[in-house]
Amino acid sequence: MKQFTSVRDMHDVNKFVQEALALKQNPLVHSQLGKNKTLGLIFLNPSLRTRMSAQKAAYNLGMNVITVSMDKEGWSIEFEEGAVMNAGKTEHIKEAAAVIGQYCDIAGIRCFPGLTDRHFDYGEVVLNQFIRYCNVPVVSLESATLHPLQSFADLITITENWNKPLKPKVVLTWAPHIKALPQAVANSFSEWMTAAEVEFIITHPEGYELDEIYTEGDTVTYDQENALLNADFVYVKNWSSYRDYGKILPVEKNWMLTNGKLGITNNAKVMHCLPVRRNVELPDEIMDGENTLILKQAENRIYAAQAVLKKMLAEI
Amino acid sequence: MKQFTSVRDMHDVNKFVQEALALKQNPLVHSQLGKNKTLGLIFLNPSLRTRMSAQKAAYNLGMNVITVSMDKEGWSIEFEEGAVMNAGKTEHIKEAAAVIGQYCDIAGIRCFPGLTDRHFDYGEVVLNQFIRYCNVPVVSLESATLHPLQSFADLITITENWNKPLKPKVVLTWAPHIKALPQAVANSFSEWMTAAEVEFIITHPEGYELDEIYTEGDTVTYDQENALLNADFVYVKNWSSYRDYGKILPVEKNWMLTNGKLGITNNAKVMHCLPVRRNVELPDEIMDGENTLILKQAENRIYAAQAVLKKMLAEI
Amino acid sequence: MKQFTSVRDMHDVNKFVQEALALKQNPLVHSQLGKNKTLGLIFLNPSLRTRMSAQKAAYNLGMNVITVSMDKEGWSIEFEEGAVMNAGKTEHIKEAAAVIGQYCDIAGIRCFPGLTDRHFDYGEVVLNQFIRYCNVPVVSLESATLHPLQSFADLITITENWNKPLKPKVVLTWAPHIKALPQAVANSFSEWMTAAEVEFIITHPEGYELDEIYTEGDTVTYDQENALLNADFVYVKNWSSYRDYGKILPVEKNWMLTNGKLGITNNAKVMHCLPVRRNVELPDEIMDGENTLILKQAENRIYAAQAVLKKMLAEI
Repeated sequence: MKQFTSVRDMHDVNKFVQEALALKQNPLVHSQLGKNKTLGLIFLNPSLRTRMSAQKAAYNLGMNVITVSMDKEGWSIEFEEGAVMNAGKTEHIKEAAAVIGQYCDIAGIRCFPGLTDRHFDYGEVVLNQFIRYCNVPVVSLESATLHPLQSFADLITITENWNKPLKPKVVLTWAPHIKALPQAVANSFSEWMTAAEVEFIITHPEGYELDEIYTEGDTVTYDQENALLNADFVYVKNWSSYRDYGKILPVEKNWMLTNGKLGITNNAKVMHCLPVRRNVELPDEIMDGENTLILKQAENRIYAAQAVLKKMLAEI
Repeated sequence: MKQFTSVRDMHDVNKFVQEALALKQNPLVHSQLGKNKTLGLIFLNPSLRTRMSAQKAAYNLGMNVITVSMDKEGWSIEFEEGAVMNAGKTEHIKEAAAVIGQYCDIAGIRCFPGLTDRHFDYGEVVLNQFIRYCNVPVVSLESATLHPLQSFADLITITENWNKPLKPKVVLTWAPHIKALPQAVANSFSEWMTAAEVEFIITHPEGYELDEIYTEGDTVTYDQENALLNADFVYVKNWSSYRDYGKILPVEKNWMLTNGKLGITNNAKVMHCLPVRRNVELPDEIMDGENTLILKQAENRIYAAQAVLKKMLAEI
Repeated sequence: MKQFTSVRDMHDVNKFVQEALALKQNPLVHSQLGKNKTLGLIFLNPSLRTRMSAQKAAYNLGMNVITVSMDKEGWSIEFEEGAVMNAGKTEHIKEAAAVIGQYCDIAGIRCFPGLTDRHFDYGEVVLNQFIRYCNVPVVSLESATLHPLQSFADLITITENWNKPLKPKVVLTWAPHIKALPQAVANSFSEWMTAAEVEFIITHPEGYELDEIYTEGDTVTYDQENALLNADFVYVKNWSSYRDYGKILPVEKNWMLTNGKLGITNNAKVMHCLPVRRNVELPDEIMDGENTLILKQAENRIYAAQAVLKKMLAEI
């Protein structure tokens, strides 16, 4: 595995989920595999769960870790091919990525979208150039359009919490927020659910349609209530508009999930990638209630990362 | 030991001091105890000594360490129960603490007081919520009202430097400063000295009385000269007013300790927790003189932290 | 080796280069040497290569590492002897350095020049005080006037890429830039080339003369073309004026190296310490061409650091 940036980088999703669940049972069984190997974690944006879970996963495999908060401790990076660098950028991604690759056996990078230039963001210019010039296996720690370690952890969590023969009904529902957020988690969850053995429905207000490349074949509806009917898992997430790129559009009804709304589900489990703004995205009654899987998702971030790192280490 | 936030979390203070002194003699004797265990260090505020000494202590015990400068690399945290998070805060302490606890075997947190809302600060809202939701043993790396790792190191240092049968006379004296500082170090030192086998006196200008919960039974005087008479150890520290909360009150005399003032002591050793503003809190003649124990205190931070971590590891 | 701040700290430069090249062949052969030893890396300024390569070198030797971005995570430091610290500085270098030394077996520090006070910068006040009070071996991670780990890596790179009996002709050429940069890399490269078995020439516009202490005996010319004639290695670097201290002086011709200019060299290899501003300091045609050694220099930063740390560890 030369890169982990999308579900498409996985040969067999189900096998990977089982691998992660096995690692969760015995996290230290491969603690010699990463000996004398170094994981470099490069952050162009803030991170708590990703930062900590990736380090924990690496330690479980016996790796060394170097973290760089590039936006604060390093240099500002130029991404444009052919740029005359006579303004604010100090170093080109070509050199930065190549150098980082020389100091690490595996590299991870986090890079949020700017949400102003859709073509640039959806071209994954930052991630793709990093991969191109880095020369070692690269793990996405969330990119402009996808957050694969999160979605992998989400699928692990759903698998752990489902033991019936029928496919579960999984709903992705848009939630309110006060800031314009990336579409990455929603894109990514859609992509993974489409690949998984589930019945998947997306619901959001008009104008919040995701890029169809991630939702091909999925049912999409503006009717939240209808989507929630008999749901087994409800994934809650805000995102800004993809069509009117990066904008917060006016929304009439209150899209926040409540215990009342959960009443029409199949006593659905509630999921969110965190950080969550309480009583804006999700109410306290759900966050503190019995239906939440949110902390389990966060815990499974360790084993998602560990399964990916293990696979990469085995192939180095 | 599920938490280390105050001298009250210690069963037997003297035994702990002896344990730390033993670790100082053989820092690596327990280097397998922490193998495959992870210490998470969360900083909401700047730190040099605490950051480095806690890491060193963890390494001596064979632990892995993850540090997060939450104020810079992570998300801004909401602490209010029931808050509608539609303003500047991104994540609630309930989730942040719970997630951190899932990635660590022991967690440390540093959180300074705001010095504007005494009720909030002295309620230790940040620390207590972190502990409540973290689900793993928590070490205070300095909280709003106390700095127990510092005070533990201070007591280790006094013990090392006292070999007479009588109790030493220990004086805590207020010192000038240009900024409003927390009362945490003064509260904490008072609490520990009250629990230790010493004769303890506090001296400060009028209006700088500490919260009596930490000074119960202690002699308190506005007369610095009288306090210093025959002192064996003089602990120097500035703090802002507790009564007129967070304020710097006008002070008539010069409260800075000098070699002249040391003349009436029992050739007292001088202590300070660092960082110190030279020639404001303490003059060069003392900082560079023979009576200072200040660097020894800093060194003992390693063994204070190591004794606490060792105890926690042994009970996990 | 008690300090590594300049080529003058090296007993035998050539032997050290051979040692580094041997480590490059077998990076892990001394992986027990640094066991239970701690490297402290203190950054007063941004760093990518130095931060990562020093950590990688330490891990190769089995060391633990503590990094502190002092400018962001720690306290602001006072360097003036006798200062009354009643302004913006929180801690004196005397205490900060001494404390750091207590928590580490070897300490590294990065401290850029302010470029306003030449006397202060060229007195290396920050580095020298750090060394004076730290009490453990100190590695410069780039100081106000020198960058010895870079120059060591540069010499390793030249040695690797030269296999003829005659000395290579090495040219240091000034390059354009939009900001006022330190002279450190240019000073340092000059110092090391003067000590190495090479024919060394410096070329720069009038007014950009380096401090003669680093260029004694070297040929210096304002005629770039003449300098480049038959060159085997061309080291490209911008620096601000030393005479008119820290200033960017008007320069008539375009000093940027091009493939055209390389035509008169002996098919010279091109070097730069990074970060480089493309198409300002060096054009894409050279950065992406076949003559560049720039990434090799960056890679060799690991083995330069490792050779220095190994020497220090062996003598502790």
